[in-house]
Amino acid sequence: MLDEVLAAIRPLDSWAMAAARELQARLTKPAGSLGALEELAVRLAGLAGTCPPPVPVPAALAVFAGDHGVHAQGVTPWPQEVTAQMVANFLAGGAVVNAFARQADVSVTVVDVGVAATLAPNPGLVAAKVRPGTADLSVGPAMTRDEALAAIGVGIEVANSLVDSGARALLTGDMGIGNTTPAAALVAVFTGLDPSAVTGRGTGVDDNMYARKVAVVRAALDRHRPDPADPIGVLASVGGLEHAALAGFVLAGAARRVPVILDGVIADAAALVAAALAPEVADACVAGHRSAESGAGAAIINLGLTPLLDLGLRLGEGTGAVLALPIVASAARVLHEVATFDAAGISG
Amino acid sequence: MLDEVLAAIRPLDSWAMAAARELQARLTKPAGSLGALEELAVRLAGLAGTCPPPVPVPAALAVFAGDHGVHAQGVTPWPQEVTAQMVANFLAGGAVVNAFARQADVSVTVVDVGVAATLAPNPGLVAAKVRPGTADLSVGPAMTRDEALAAIGVGIEVANSLVDSGARALLTGDMGIGNTTPAAALVAVFTGLDPSAVTGRGTGVDDNMYARKVAVVRAALDRHRPDPADPIGVLASVGGLEHAALAGFVLAGAARRVPVILDGVIADAAALVAAALAPEVADACVAGHRSAESGAGAAIINLGLTPLLDLGLRLGEGTGAVLALPIVASAARVLHEVATFDAAGISG
Repeated sequence: MLDEVLAAIRPLDSWAMAAARELQARLTKPAGSLGALEELAVRLAGLAGTCPPPVPVPAALAVFAGDHGVHAQGVTPWPQEVTAQMVANFLAGGAVVNAFARQADVSVTVVDVGVAATLAPNPGLVAAKVRPGTADLSVGPAMTRDEALAAIGVGIEVANSLVDSGARALLTGDMGIGNTTPAAALVAVFTGLDPSAVTGRGTGVDDNMYARKVAVVRAALDRHRPDPADPIGVLASVGGLEHAALAGFVLAGAARRVPVILDGVIADAAALVAAALAPEVADACVAGHRSAESGAGAAIINLGLTPLLDLGLRLGEGTGAVLALPIVASAARVLHEVATFDAAGISG
Repeated sequence: MLDEVLAAIRPLDSWAMAAARELQARLTKPAGSLGALEELAVRLAGLAGTCPPPVPVPAALAVFAGDHGVHAQGVTPWPQEVTAQMVANFLAGGAVVNAFARQADVSVTVVDVGVAATLAPNPGLVAAKVRPGTADLSVGPAMTRDEALAAIGVGIEVANSLVDSGARALLTGDMGIGNTTPAAALVAVFTGLDPSAVTGRGTGVDDNMYARKVAVVRAALDRHRPDPADPIGVLASVGGLEHAALAGFVLAGAARRVPVILDGVIADAAALVAAALAPEVADACVAGHRSAESGAGAAIINLGLTPLLDLGLRLGEGTGAVLALPIVASAARVLHEVATFDAAGISG
């Protein structure tokens, strides 16, 4: 399945991008006055292969949930059972991302790709557990290569299902107590930066715990020596199940030529994995925001992206991606709806 | 009318703000993880005097249009008739702000407070022309004090009318070829910064024209010596009719305790005028974005605000305010819709 997806990923369509640039120049606004939204609209045209590009609504958020054996190392103040409790909160519509999604008219799909608990069946839950949490990456591989590939496959299937159901934008979400630790490891591997530069404080880590978290990431990299040229091997040794699923989700979005709005550091790390498998995948990605988590900025730069928002968010769940969606939709709408100087009879 | 509005402006309600902070701490998210949105929600509660505060929808944008005698000094490459042509474009729904407003479900009201042309009646146009464009501020006062007060009154009436019709947020918009020149003068007066620091390139000014624009602002300040302690006098000498109307609009929004989302440098300059009349008015304002126009950042800092977006926009019309609305609404929704740790049974 992964091979098929990788084979379908193509560069942006330069004809559609040129058409979008030419159209932008004729619209009733001073050249360049929409700042970052102008190039965003051009990229959307290149991705869709048409000008104007589709307005990316309806949009669908997938929240991939998983647990992490590295939790045992004391890298977060939150008990592991919060992952399952938050899945229930998403399904009940009570989490922050649910509130944001209602505001932005985004559907929310929750995917159990690796929660370390048996979750009750729920019509809103995609039950696709590859294993009940990863193993502790500080003492051995987080998962097998086959499990990494299976989790990638979950992300691909969810993306394809959402696009088949009409989604014109895919938004990344995640839930997993401890998941900023594998994210930091992934960002370190693919950017080459030191763990101290890309490890953040997650959600409430104090100085002692932060030092331990950095040490855990450093020790894991020393132990596994993950090879960035082998992205599946990197995922298997130091990744997480939701990171793997998100990598598949991003790849499938790119293959379907649908924009993928990245949330925070978990998605940014997953996008690095995806880009290591298919560099053109970054062209399908929009960095919804720059998370306050320190690895996020480094990952976004490595992907060649510019974040739309920078509000100090560090919640995850997909919150930053959902907040960014109306901006992406607005950028696309310009190419559909704004009058040209000629048509409006305006002195250009 | 202005005196009544000024008398109605009160500080934020500290009880409601404390209640909002206490509620934030009990919601199912790590403390502080929503970054700038947390304090924004607290301010909305303080403004409304209730917790949770109303979600600021429906929202109404008013685009105040005016012309500028200083156009004669060659401070912009655009012909003056573009102001009236763009008013027609707004009314036809063909401008960028119309596309953004459709995406965000914001109503658009266009107000002729000083266009230098006779505009045909239109159901979407509020005909409230105080005078057909200002006089050239580089050779005399832009308008009389009575005209400045009348234009402020137009803004107050429009704001009150929109709030009476159900608007729970007011968004500022503007159209006026040449209007970044009086905006720069206003920002210089109220921040005390040099004209070279707060004059921007507007929409397409080259190096020579930019030097002329800065010189025009400097000469106007030298000529009029506007006194920041006399905000009406400042408006009369170096302001614009849409700036005056926007000052009234901001003041009335604050008096009605409805959040006012500021667009770019024109609104930021108008908010400085409003804050000079009633300092508490800044608490009712949300800086929708940081315009690329250089005076905007200085004005926002002077107002004690932090912009939500920084996308390099320099279009005006209200575009940045409309893009920011979903973020403001999302911040408010958190306090209404997110479950508490207790209610969701989550280990806090």
